[in-house]
Amino acid sequence: MADDDAVGLLEGIATTRAIRRFIPEPVPEEALATMLFAATRAPSGSNRQPFRFLVLQHGPRAEKARRLIADGARRAWGTKRQVDRYDTGSGTVSSSPKARLAATMSHFVEDFEHIPVVVLPCLERYREPTPTEGASIYPACQNLLLAARALGYGGVLTGWHAMVEPELRTLLGIPEHVFMAATIALGRPAGRHGPVRRRPLHELVFEDGWGQAAAWAVDPPGTAFTQAGPPR
Amino acid sequence: MADDDAVGLLEGIATTRAIRRFIPEPVPEEALATMLFAATRAPSGSNRQPFRFLVLQHGPRAEKARRLIADGARRAWGTKRQVDRYDTGSGTVSSSPKARLAATMSHFVEDFEHIPVVVLPCLERYREPTPTEGASIYPACQNLLLAARALGYGGVLTGWHAMVEPELRTLLGIPEHVFMAATIALGRPAGRHGPVRRRPLHELVFEDGWGQAAAWAVDPPGTAFTQAGPPR
Repeated sequence: MADDDAVGLLEGIATTRAIRRFIPEPVPEEALATMLFAATRAPSGSNRQPFRFLVLQHGPRAEKARRLIADGARRAWGTKRQVDRYDTGSGTVSSSPKARLAATMSHFVEDFEHIPVVVLPCLERYREPTPTEGASIYPACQNLLLAARALGYGGVLTGWHAMVEPELRTLLGIPEHVFMAATIALGRPAGRHGPVRRRPLHELVFEDGWGQAAAWAVDPPGTAFTQAGPPR
Repeated sequence: MADDDAVGLLEGIATTRAIRRFIPEPVPEEALATMLFAATRAPSGSNRQPFRFLVLQHGPRAEKARRLIADGARRAWGTKRQVDRYDTGSGTVSSSPKARLAATMSHFVEDFEHIPVVVLPCLERYREPTPTEGASIYPACQNLLLAARALGYGGVLTGWHAMVEPELRTLLGIPEHVFMAATIALGRPAGRHGPVRRRPLHELVFEDGWGQAAAWAVDPPGTAFTQAGPPR
């Protein structure tokens, strides 16, 4: 293993958390190139490689695009905060997971313009949209986030562009047939990487029939769990 | 890094190829559990974890389901072989990449019933289908394939279930609201892992606007390329 590849594959997968707080430090171009190289190693249907990555840093259009997405993100989070009732129940206790996630999300969208790098992963459609087309873009997004982790960076996959998609297409010249799949924020984490939390494996893995838990599907000792969905 | 995690994160990402030839050797349950644990570490919208993995091995319904998918795969490959004209041009030269891929695919579908493990990644829908819902299932599929690579196994993401989806739903009790996202074949590779080939990075990575190549997006020295799509 190369010296600059010190995180193990299994360890990296298990500790790549959504990172939403970043240190105001630029991402070197060499690191970005490594992340994008990793992203494009992902599989796609018939290896058609329809994935494209539009990187937004400090170019003239990039700055405008980032402001547009930031405005959309603030509106979207404002709505989500209400719909998912972040300010009720345990959300009123500042130390609760719910209140802490709300604080992180608020900081994330307020500070969106200052995120070191924003990437728009897109898919060049070659046929009518199908529910499975994501199989040719989202594996690449996951590779990108894992490679960021390998280099000490981090990020998060969001849908914030959706709020301002027509404006973004015009500004950045993204053709109509291109599917805008996500908005990825990238940078040096202000916090730590660490084990992600999920539901217990027996709720997620079935064998021989739907809903039939696989007896062997047990989490490693010491695994911490979390319920699904936004905090209640 | 743990002793059993000897592949680096970046190295693993760059060398996880689609594996379609397997040694007839069962995958130990512990290895399967590790792969599914890795799969479920993936992100999903609001951490709702709507991903479910239905594992097909040797249970009574699993055997039937595998035969169903195998029949579908053979029909699908038969069609694809004609549509993508695998038996014309360089496909008539047995040493050409086109003919070799055709041979691998034929062997893959003919031998489908003997693939050590088949996994059906599914998504428990909680709202109407959207083009972005794949963001909550395909990153998990990629984690699964990477974890297989970490343990010396390999696999491939296919859409073979689509040919026989209604029959599979009935047989396995998969509810209508569940999105069947893929069919993953897993096992010990008969061939080798190794660097995957893609188009040059400057064709896939843009900056500041659509189609504007990012100057820094260069492949590492020695990178081998391939054109997009099925061999011509």
